[in-house]
Amino acid sequence: MIEELLGSGDALDEVRLLREETDVVDALARATWSVLAEPGDGIAGVLIQALGAEEALRYALDGVQRDGAVDALLDTADPRVRRAVAEGRRRWAPRVEARAVRDALRGAREVGARLLLPGDDLWPGALDDLEANAPIALWVRGDPRRWTVTPRVSMVGARASSGYGDLVAAEIAGDLAASGALIVSGGAYGIDGAAHRAALGVGGGTVAFLAGGVDRAYPAGHHGLLKQIAEEGAVVSELPCGAAPTKWRFLARNRLIAALGDVTVVVEAGWRSGSLNTAGHAAALGRPLGAVPGAVTSASSAGCHRLLREYDAVCVTSAADVRELCGTMSERDRVAENADPERVRILDAISGRAALPTIEVARRSGLSVERVLSHLGLLELEGAVYPVGGGWRRSPS
Amino acid sequence: MIEELLGSGDALDEVRLLREETDVVDALARATWSVLAEPGDGIAGVLIQALGAEEALRYALDGVQRDGAVDALLDTADPRVRRAVAEGRRRWAPRVEARAVRDALRGAREVGARLLLPGDDLWPGALDDLEANAPIALWVRGDPRRWTVTPRVSMVGARASSGYGDLVAAEIAGDLAASGALIVSGGAYGIDGAAHRAALGVGGGTVAFLAGGVDRAYPAGHHGLLKQIAEEGAVVSELPCGAAPTKWRFLARNRLIAALGDVTVVVEAGWRSGSLNTAGHAAALGRPLGAVPGAVTSASSAGCHRLLREYDAVCVTSAADVRELCGTMSERDRVAENADPERVRILDAISGRAALPTIEVARRSGLSVERVLSHLGLLELEGAVYPVGGGWRRSPS
Repeated sequence: MIEELLGSGDALDEVRLLREETDVVDALARATWSVLAEPGDGIAGVLIQALGAEEALRYALDGVQRDGAVDALLDTADPRVRRAVAEGRRRWAPRVEARAVRDALRGAREVGARLLLPGDDLWPGALDDLEANAPIALWVRGDPRRWTVTPRVSMVGARASSGYGDLVAAEIAGDLAASGALIVSGGAYGIDGAAHRAALGVGGGTVAFLAGGVDRAYPAGHHGLLKQIAEEGAVVSELPCGAAPTKWRFLARNRLIAALGDVTVVVEAGWRSGSLNTAGHAAALGRPLGAVPGAVTSASSAGCHRLLREYDAVCVTSAADVRELCGTMSERDRVAENADPERVRILDAISGRAALPTIEVARRSGLSVERVLSHLGLLELEGAVYPVGGGWRRSPS
Repeated sequence: MIEELLGSGDALDEVRLLREETDVVDALARATWSVLAEPGDGIAGVLIQALGAEEALRYALDGVQRDGAVDALLDTADPRVRRAVAEGRRRWAPRVEARAVRDALRGAREVGARLLLPGDDLWPGALDDLEANAPIALWVRGDPRRWTVTPRVSMVGARASSGYGDLVAAEIAGDLAASGALIVSGGAYGIDGAAHRAALGVGGGTVAFLAGGVDRAYPAGHHGLLKQIAEEGAVVSELPCGAAPTKWRFLARNRLIAALGDVTVVVEAGWRSGSLNTAGHAAALGRPLGAVPGAVTSASSAGCHRLLREYDAVCVTSAADVRELCGTMSERDRVAENADPERVRILDAISGRAALPTIEVARRSGLSVERVLSHLGLLELEGAVYPVGGGWRRSPS
């Protein structure tokens, strides 16, 4: 099975066309993983980090391991990891098809997309903060040098935005892009589109993360916009060419937007908007989070107000406010640099305002309930948090 | 001089008409103080707290002291207090006129106002949190039992409010008042008026604090509204009848609104609105502070957004949000109850978001720069605050 995949001269030739002077077998292995695994598949991530993409693929597909490396890994891990790896193998197997990988590579070549891998000079290291959930590879149409600037501001919001939201998104994104910031968003209708367009309008940099392959314009109505972003900025996906966007892939894509941005700003969002998911990822990563307020009578600002209330998002009213938010980052990092990262994530997740149940703290911090509980016990003893009505709240400092 | 004031049979008779079964000399002394001293005169407050109203008056006007009580007080105080007391005596002397006191008492009787004093059953103890700046007496038209309910919500905002602000103020105040909360405000045009009217509209309780005597309707256009508040709620001032509102008295009045409310909510406010002064008092008193957001394109919401950014105000979008804010109060108090009150005030004053210069921390906390600096040094050592570009910011907890 593995020979059919990694030993194919056709596929290796395709990889050579996409990437010069590279370890083509490793690149092909990662391209294959991007076909096999759904975005953010943490089990694939753990295996690849431990074994390398090629060995991980060998084990995943054929059960072959060198020097008992996998057994050694699983022996020291939580028993649930062993079960999850077994489940992963069952999940990946149905997708193994040499043709699918070759099609992805060919599709990329046809639209002029590159295959970018961790360790490449232009690989965006900020995504590695996602740890086991970092992308295995990125498919890029456009110029990946675009994201080497600072600050990088992720601006997201409602697809069904109001005129007010579009106006504010355009004003803030245009101002930031004109002063050299990169505007990162999701290429969707509404706020995303307004932010991308404003950045392009001032000749600034912008990057769109898609939830499907970069060879497909989604939404179709943004065909022209995405083409322009690919030409003047970059359109990026962790999914191979040909892959359709799905609900899960939209949610997983949001973590890349949150991770690439130095800060994330939500411009307009309904009470249950997908933008809150992006905001949650930003908070879990310890990235500063901003929200633009609006009328309390407007349903399309309800999610932003929720972020201000429940997630301690900072109220952002202008590009100057966003720049100040970018400035807070380095100071936060400085304060937090000697702290246990799990503690930082838990404290970031807990609000000083609304009490959160433990399970919600776990969800927001991206840690297990067990880890959260063990930290909370200590944090309570230290007086940093206190229990309120079945939930947890941060103490006034 | 003092005999002319406190020995006047006419004035004592007037006091008897306003207050049954009471120490009429003490009541007259306090009424006299309310004529002599401007609102929030902390030096008058210190003398009255130390000596009682009558003895303080005797010393202030005639330099007479019993058993060297004033010298004992000044010997242990900061040298600046001695100078301030001397200045106070020069400030109060020009206002000493027995007729002015009698006129104030007669004016109160004519409009059916009561004279309420600290220690009275219905004295609002929350105002004593103002310590030396607490009012010396209150002149009340209406029923002082109105403020014995909880929660008491102070709602303030721009005089030049927008239709949006009026609407939101009315919705929130009406909902809260209908469920038994007291709406406290300043009787002004705009947000204040909308909040009072909504409370009256649902048959709820409301109290207006005026910056002049309760015998004058200010603003004149609110003559009918203030009359209705006096009939169904209460109209209150620390200034005697006949006193005109002045710029200083408006600012001083704001501290009473902030102190009586369990929480303070700013509904709409321009960038330099007087409502921010009320909000600053609430924050300095450790009262939870809420701000209603609006469009970032609306100048009349700029002050609210400033409160969200710089004062760590809580984003409030509905009556339910205000009720939740009231709930946070008791928990904050619980956490803070063993803490040094000066530390609590300094930490309340410092934001986790924007750095504040020391002088601004002093202003917000109501402490001297020297006291602030001595606390900040310790707080920095403990890691609770850190210096940023000439200012101070609170550390992430």
